[in-house]
Amino acid sequence: MGLIVQKYGGTSVADPERIRAVAEHVARTRHAGDDVVVVVSAMGKTTDDLVRLAHDVAARPSARELDMLLTSGERISISLLCMAIIDQGCPAVSFTGSQAGIVTDTTHGKARIVEVKADRIRDSLAAGDVVVVAGFQGVSTARDVTTLGRGGSDTTAVALAAVLGADACEIYTDVSGVFTADPRVEPNARRVDHLSYEEMLEMAATGGRVLALRSVEFARNDRVPLHVRSSFTWAAGTWIRDKEEGMEDAIVSGVTHDVSDVKITVDRVPDRPGIAARIFRALADEAVNVDMIEQNVSRDGHTDISFTVPADDLDRTVTVMGKVAAEIGAGGFTHDTQVGRVSLVGAGMKSNPGVAAEMFEVLATEGVNIEMISTSSIRISCVVREDDVERAVQALHAAFHLEGT
Amino acid sequence: MGLIVQKYGGTSVADPERIRAVAEHVARTRHAGDDVVVVVSAMGKTTDDLVRLAHDVAARPSARELDMLLTSGERISISLLCMAIIDQGCPAVSFTGSQAGIVTDTTHGKARIVEVKADRIRDSLAAGDVVVVAGFQGVSTARDVTTLGRGGSDTTAVALAAVLGADACEIYTDVSGVFTADPRVEPNARRVDHLSYEEMLEMAATGGRVLALRSVEFARNDRVPLHVRSSFTWAAGTWIRDKEEGMEDAIVSGVTHDVSDVKITVDRVPDRPGIAARIFRALADEAVNVDMIEQNVSRDGHTDISFTVPADDLDRTVTVMGKVAAEIGAGGFTHDTQVGRVSLVGAGMKSNPGVAAEMFEVLATEGVNIEMISTSSIRISCVVREDDVERAVQALHAAFHLEGT
Repeated sequence: MGLIVQKYGGTSVADPERIRAVAEHVARTRHAGDDVVVVVSAMGKTTDDLVRLAHDVAARPSARELDMLLTSGERISISLLCMAIIDQGCPAVSFTGSQAGIVTDTTHGKARIVEVKADRIRDSLAAGDVVVVAGFQGVSTARDVTTLGRGGSDTTAVALAAVLGADACEIYTDVSGVFTADPRVEPNARRVDHLSYEEMLEMAATGGRVLALRSVEFARNDRVPLHVRSSFTWAAGTWIRDKEEGMEDAIVSGVTHDVSDVKITVDRVPDRPGIAARIFRALADEAVNVDMIEQNVSRDGHTDISFTVPADDLDRTVTVMGKVAAEIGAGGFTHDTQVGRVSLVGAGMKSNPGVAAEMFEVLATEGVNIEMISTSSIRISCVVREDDVERAVQALHAAFHLEGT
Repeated sequence: MGLIVQKYGGTSVADPERIRAVAEHVARTRHAGDDVVVVVSAMGKTTDDLVRLAHDVAARPSARELDMLLTSGERISISLLCMAIIDQGCPAVSFTGSQAGIVTDTTHGKARIVEVKADRIRDSLAAGDVVVVAGFQGVSTARDVTTLGRGGSDTTAVALAAVLGADACEIYTDVSGVFTADPRVEPNARRVDHLSYEEMLEMAATGGRVLALRSVEFARNDRVPLHVRSSFTWAAGTWIRDKEEGMEDAIVSGVTHDVSDVKITVDRVPDRPGIAARIFRALADEAVNVDMIEQNVSRDGHTDISFTVPADDLDRTVTVMGKVAAEIGAGGFTHDTQVGRVSLVGAGMKSNPGVAAEMFEVLATEGVNIEMISTSSIRISCVVREDDVERAVQALHAAFHLEGT
């Protein structure tokens, strides 16, 4: 008798047939003896359709109202899934983010969970109900409806698993786990059985689309075991949890890539203390997620600074930089959307210093030019031309023998 | 500087173009100086679509979950309308039924408002915002999402107008007001300029589809002036309010009809005190809305009892009667869906005793057989064969000269 949190993404509940299949699986889990909390996303492309509708009625939809609108998507999926579970003879009750006690800050569209008041969920579990919770949404400290942004349903699931002390948080999706590379780019990509939180964090941060970064951070902080698996085959997938003693770390667990970033270059920045801080403080204040940063060697008391931001943040970045570049006396700034990032992730890199050198050699052999480099103890990332990304992924996947046996 | 509550039905906000047209009208009202509270239904056929979806996933959808599902419809319309109003340069904020403080009992699908805590609305109005409220929905005393049933958005609008002391409650719809008969049945039907609450109540109760009964009851209790008008022409429509002194009452204000009732006949009911009470208490306990009741003359210590119920309540009625008929020793019961009701409504009937006789003569001349009769001081209703209903409406409309000048 344990507690399982199951999260189902949009493709898992895309139509009535899929919803009934998920309901059967939930009922089976419950009847096997575990308590079950289900977190569900909006059906299929509902969220995209709603965003389009918003732009049909308003040139610049209000962020508060956009959150009100989008949260209707999960309201539909939780109630339908709940009906279907009850129809399987399994008592169930649905809760919106607000009813589930997901309290967030007031940043509409990208709210952060500040507290989870799970009393209603606990009461319903104690009463024997399966609890179905709307992912992606919460209620702000100002009592307004909020959304958690991209991957928000994963975050909801992991936050609930942490607060409720769940034995596992199962993330059901349309792929069978986490792969050594995106199978659409590298057909020899192989499912990974186990990853550490740190590896999964680096993969999520560098383009591994299966899990959102924030949900992995939550899981790591509270040591919530994650199990990423398919709602189409129901087969075991990839476990993300603390490595057990004695397990050997893979030198490279996967190759990730991301073509959604934009590279910004600020020219002729006066090379004085505090100038870089001015730029990145101004961007942080507008909630722009700066990723890689590179500063060139100084010449004539000036330097160039390059950094990457998500394409979604480009408008805000341009606004901020238009102001800041003038204030700091820079020569100007440009942006380049035709870039991509290729990364190697593996916990074993810590004790294998040659990985970076080998990566650069492989890319050089392929004629791929490296524009920016950043590293962590278990990751190496290179910014390259967008056109070179797929070739780079395939070459690295082969060079590090990730296709397995 | 007054306060206007405007309610828009599903056809008024059926698509982005209609939503923008409504937003313009709201902004125009606000800019003219009045505070505005807008109550809005789900877009077009959204609610019907959602009900269909529920039946696709579950044989018998849970009432609680159905309410959760259906309330997503107004969540979409309030947020879209609010964005469009803001886009007109008019500050606005949307509230769900729960956020608007619409507290109901726990009867899912047909909840009654028990309290309106309008503090958030008052605060937003004081801040200069147009307030857009989701119609049809509330939050129960058990903190679950509820819906108010058929015509629930009208009820929301009138309840808010009453609590906020609005100067008028404008009900925008796809017709230009209340008519002397359904124009689809009687092409000579004419828009009525003024009606008393009592007349509107009788019309709503007998098939006048423009306003739901409960919303008119609310309006009468709190003397809220109602203005039923078109959101397509924006022209003045029908006012429903207290008659001014000296205004003469029309003998007949309109002919209404309804073919949604079912006639139940209980055969050979033992003619003892308390038997009728047993039947109707059992139906009341299951929230069946019994309308007309007729008991035949007793023979051999037995009698027949006929009554009508809405078609929506038929399943529950059959369940209840199956039990009760056996308990009271009745011979059995039958139901007949091929009936209709035709009614004459007019405040002047009180002082004109010949109206009923004339109505029966008109129907007799048309060869329409009367199966049941019920009257109030300002209404006469006859149950007839469903096939005779349209002919009866047309004959009565002509005989009482309702086509006007």
